[in-house]
Amino acid sequence: MKLTIVGSVALDTIQTPSGKVNEVLGGSAYYASLVSRNFCKTGIVGVVGQDFPQEYIDMLNGFNIDTEGLEIAEGKTFRWVGKYDNLNQAITLDTQLNVFADFDPIIPESYKSTECLFLGNIHPKLQRKVLDQLDHAKIIAIDTMNYWIESCKDDLLDVIKDVDILFINEDEVKQLTGKKNVFQAADAALEYGVKLVVIKQGEYGAFAISEAFTFFAPVYPVRNVVDPTGAGDSFAGGFMGYIAGKNDFSQHAVKLAMIHGSVMASFNIQDFSMTELKKVKTKDIEKRMKYMLDSMSIIKNAK
Amino acid sequence: MKLTIVGSVALDTIQTPSGKVNEVLGGSAYYASLVSRNFCKTGIVGVVGQDFPQEYIDMLNGFNIDTEGLEIAEGKTFRWVGKYDNLNQAITLDTQLNVFADFDPIIPESYKSTECLFLGNIHPKLQRKVLDQLDHAKIIAIDTMNYWIESCKDDLLDVIKDVDILFINEDEVKQLTGKKNVFQAADAALEYGVKLVVIKQGEYGAFAISEAFTFFAPVYPVRNVVDPTGAGDSFAGGFMGYIAGKNDFSQHAVKLAMIHGSVMASFNIQDFSMTELKKVKTKDIEKRMKYMLDSMSIIKNAK
Repeated sequence: MKLTIVGSVALDTIQTPSGKVNEVLGGSAYYASLVSRNFCKTGIVGVVGQDFPQEYIDMLNGFNIDTEGLEIAEGKTFRWVGKYDNLNQAITLDTQLNVFADFDPIIPESYKSTECLFLGNIHPKLQRKVLDQLDHAKIIAIDTMNYWIESCKDDLLDVIKDVDILFINEDEVKQLTGKKNVFQAADAALEYGVKLVVIKQGEYGAFAISEAFTFFAPVYPVRNVVDPTGAGDSFAGGFMGYIAGKNDFSQHAVKLAMIHGSVMASFNIQDFSMTELKKVKTKDIEKRMKYMLDSMSIIKNAK
Repeated sequence: MKLTIVGSVALDTIQTPSGKVNEVLGGSAYYASLVSRNFCKTGIVGVVGQDFPQEYIDMLNGFNIDTEGLEIAEGKTFRWVGKYDNLNQAITLDTQLNVFADFDPIIPESYKSTECLFLGNIHPKLQRKVLDQLDHAKIIAIDTMNYWIESCKDDLLDVIKDVDILFINEDEVKQLTGKKNVFQAADAALEYGVKLVVIKQGEYGAFAISEAFTFFAPVYPVRNVVDPTGAGDSFAGGFMGYIAGKNDFSQHAVKLAMIHGSVMASFNIQDFSMTELKKVKTKDIEKRMKYMLDSMSIIKNAK
C-alpha cells in the first residue's frame, strides 16, 4: 500500500445556489481516496452503518481502492446537513454522528506496510490511535477543523507534533496559533514540529510553507462552481496521492503536489458530491496540469 | 516621457490596528508615481491646494518625477479619513474633495510624447478628458472604484472601451459585470474591449487575464502589515512602470510586471503613507523579485 487514508464517511444533504441534493456520498476519507486513486494504490479506513449503499463500496473496489479498513458497524451512517449561501463558507444545519460517534479505527494487517498516511478530519484522539498503529509510515499528514481546535486543542497538538504535514484552513491556522497574520500563523504552526504546513485559502488557492521555502498554488479557474464540499479533502488527496505515488517529498515534488491538489479540487467543485471525481480520467488531469504549468511559467516566450 | 500617471493627490488621516496618522501624504497618483519611478521616467498629473507642503513636490522632483502636470489650485488639498478594523477593507469616515472637486486635468506639452498612460482612480469624465489628450500612447491602463461604478457606469464603460488594461478589485469587477464568479466577471470585463484585465485580490494577490492566458501573481509574504492604503496603486505603479520601462507588452512581460506589482505593494503596506516607498532601493526590489521567482519556480532541484 502506498497511501492509507483515514477519515469520515458520510451521507450529505447539501444546498448551494446551484441546487439541493439529499443524502449523497460524502466524508473526508471518501473524497480524498477517490482522488488519490489516480496517483497511487490507496486504502481507506472509516466506518459506515448498515444503511450504507453497497454500491458505494463496490465503486471504491472498482477503482482498486482497498476497502478492508472500511468497517460496517451496527447502526446508521453519519449524516451531515449543510448549506452555502455564498460558496466560501459552509453552514452546518444538522449533524447526526450515528456510527461515527463510536468509531474505533482498527488498521487491517494488509495496510501496515503503507508508505504514507493521511489522517483526515476526525477526533484527534482517533487520529492518534491510527498514528500509533502506522507510525513507521514515511510521510504522515493531518487535516483538522475548527471544532477540534476549540474542543480539544491539546489532543490535536499532541498528534500534530508527530506528523510531517499539517493541512489546515486559513481561518483555522489563525485560530490554532492565535496569530492574525496568515504568514505569522504559518510560522507558528511550523514550530509545532511539522516539516510542512499547507494552508488552504478556498477560492484563492493554497500555499505550502516550510523552513526552506514558500510556494503558492493558484486555483484552476472554474467558472461554474456547483458545490465546494470536499474541496479541501480533494486537494489533500491530490497532494498526498502525488507524493506517495512518486515516493518523493522534495521541494520540487511538493510544488507539483500542490498543483495536483489544486487541479483535483477544481474537478470536485464542478458538481455535487463525487459526481466529477468518479468520472475523472488521467488525460483530464494531465490537461489541467499542463494548463496550470503553462500559465505559471515565467520562461520567456512561453506559450 | 515613458509613463504619465493621472490620479488623486490627498492628505490622508488613517487608523489601522497598528496606529493612527494625521494628514499624511496619499492619493493614487502619488503612490503609483513613487513606485514607477524605480522603473521608468514618470510624469504626474494631479491637483493640490495651496496648503500642500512644498516638500512633497520637492520629493518627487528629487526622484526625477516630472511634476509639471501637478497643478497648485486655489483652495485646500483633497482630504480622506479612513480606518481599517481588519486589514482587508477600508472604511471611509470622511471625504473633503476641496480642489479635487473642480479638477480639470490639462496635460503639459512636455508630457505629450508619453508612451504609456495610467489613468488612476478619478471621475471617468476626467479620465476621458486625459485620454483624449494622450490617445496616441501605446499602452493605456485604467483603474476605478465602486463609487464610479455605482454613480456613472456609462461614463466609465465609455473610457474602458478605449484602453488596453483594466485594473480592478475583485468585488468591483463583480459589481461592474453583474457576475458572481470572479472568472466569469473577468471574461465579461474582457468583452468591454480591453486587452488585459488585472484583478486585484488584496492579501491573496492578483491575476491577469487576456484572451490568450491567465496568470496568478501571489503576494510577497509580509508578516507585519501596518497600512494597506495605496497597495492597489503601488501594484499598478509597479506593473505599469515595468511595462513602460521595458517597452514590452508581451505575455512574458505582463507576468513579470504582475510580480513587480506584487513586490512593490509588499513594500508599501509595511508602513503608513509612503514611508517605505520613499526608502526603497533597486537592490531591495531585486532581492524580493529573486525571492518571488525562486519560490514560484517549478524547475527540478530549484533552490
